[in-house]
Amino acid sequence: MSEISSGNTRKVEVVFSPLNFPSYFENKDCTVVVIDIFRATSAICAAFESGIESLIPVDTIEKAKKYQQEGFLVGAERNAEIVEGFDFGNSPLTFKNEKYKNQSVVLTTTNGTKAIEIAKEATTVIIGAFTNFTALCQYVEDQDKDVLLLCAGWKDRFNLEDTLFAGAVAEKISKNLRFQNLSDSSIAAINMYITAKKDMYGFLGESSHRKRLSRLNMEEDIIYCLSFDKSSIVPILKGDKIIAAS
Amino acid sequence: MSEISSGNTRKVEVVFSPLNFPSYFENKDCTVVVIDIFRATSAICAAFESGIESLIPVDTIEKAKKYQQEGFLVGAERNAEIVEGFDFGNSPLTFKNEKYKNQSVVLTTTNGTKAIEIAKEATTVIIGAFTNFTALCQYVEDQDKDVLLLCAGWKDRFNLEDTLFAGAVAEKISKNLRFQNLSDSSIAAINMYITAKKDMYGFLGESSHRKRLSRLNMEEDIIYCLSFDKSSIVPILKGDKIIAAS
Repeated sequence: MSEISSGNTRKVEVVFSPLNFPSYFENKDCTVVVIDIFRATSAICAAFESGIESLIPVDTIEKAKKYQQEGFLVGAERNAEIVEGFDFGNSPLTFKNEKYKNQSVVLTTTNGTKAIEIAKEATTVIIGAFTNFTALCQYVEDQDKDVLLLCAGWKDRFNLEDTLFAGAVAEKISKNLRFQNLSDSSIAAINMYITAKKDMYGFLGESSHRKRLSRLNMEEDIIYCLSFDKSSIVPILKGDKIIAAS
Repeated sequence: MSEISSGNTRKVEVVFSPLNFPSYFENKDCTVVVIDIFRATSAICAAFESGIESLIPVDTIEKAKKYQQEGFLVGAERNAEIVEGFDFGNSPLTFKNEKYKNQSVVLTTTNGTKAIEIAKEATTVIIGAFTNFTALCQYVEDQDKDVLLLCAGWKDRFNLEDTLFAGAVAEKISKNLRFQNLSDSSIAAINMYITAKKDMYGFLGESSHRKRLSRLNMEEDIIYCLSFDKSSIVPILKGDKIIAAS
């Protein structure tokens, strides 16, 4: 555990979109949790739970195609749908399949991969979803550094589901006395999570992205993405790859 | 009242900082409400209630100094304090003084004037604070256009007090059937306002800016800025000047 001066506690800040990240990224020696509940980070957690060896996030369709030509398993999503020419998108249910075991998977998504890209300079970048909630919170506490909860949002806008998850993490870790320096954004997210936690599905009923996914018949995905602790793996960025944290 | 197609309602979106404004500013023919509760927009409302003729918002200290040399009454605030060489900053209580009557006042502040500057291209830019809440909501409804509730925030970051006010406005106008197309950010802000409204002062107890102002002995300002309906004037931007809307 690194030393901090007496009386100081770690900052816990929620960043509502990648656009806002630079305003909060003052201390590079921090833990960034990348959050894209519907559905990139939920999908990444599902992929690791299914035994993939690594995941390479890429920001453009062009890069994804190159990997495809090299024989990788490549997923691509834009605007909540699978991009033509690719086998899968960012549905976590995709990964309930033996074929992913021990594979390196490549993924590009509308918002999630952009958030991972922008966070790269931080000491520790990990992937969070309700589906790995407890393991993730424990990992964050063990790091004992300032925490940025980075919401992927939707095209640089605030969204409810990522904020709910950020609030859940902030609420949980702030019970630890070392994580009590909360920003205004953390206070707001915690407040929202406390209001919503008894019925997150209902709370999100009017959210733009739940409506978007519902129109595309993705109710099963929504329910999965709002489920706690399907996995105890914390995916972590190492160089350009995501692997399972040890 | 302008026509809208049947079934459509006006968008109501909260923008958490000027940095995020471009992502939400799709339709220039909208009403932008600029919000900087602690304290620029509360001060501007107080200045109009004291009878000023117009207020010129400027973004730099240099511009403010030029106006000062020309004999204007000029206020300047940075980091919650009056800038050296200026007579006043952004305390609304300053304006409880006869000397401002019928004057043109110039003001530069840390966050508020930046938010006004960025909103200039919208059809209608008005100044909102708890102190002109009811008049402001009525004005917004009368405009009958999409609404962007632009929080000045704090140095491009989210803050609680501006969001609370945005939530109060969104809650109020969304009771009107023409203003029910709420963004995720509006839903979050409304939710927060409903939680906080019985004791906004207490809710803001842990907020960064209330703590900042409390350290500077500005409790009286805080209480004033959280008071409803001290004025029925809606300040509106016309060219480079703010005047009282007719």
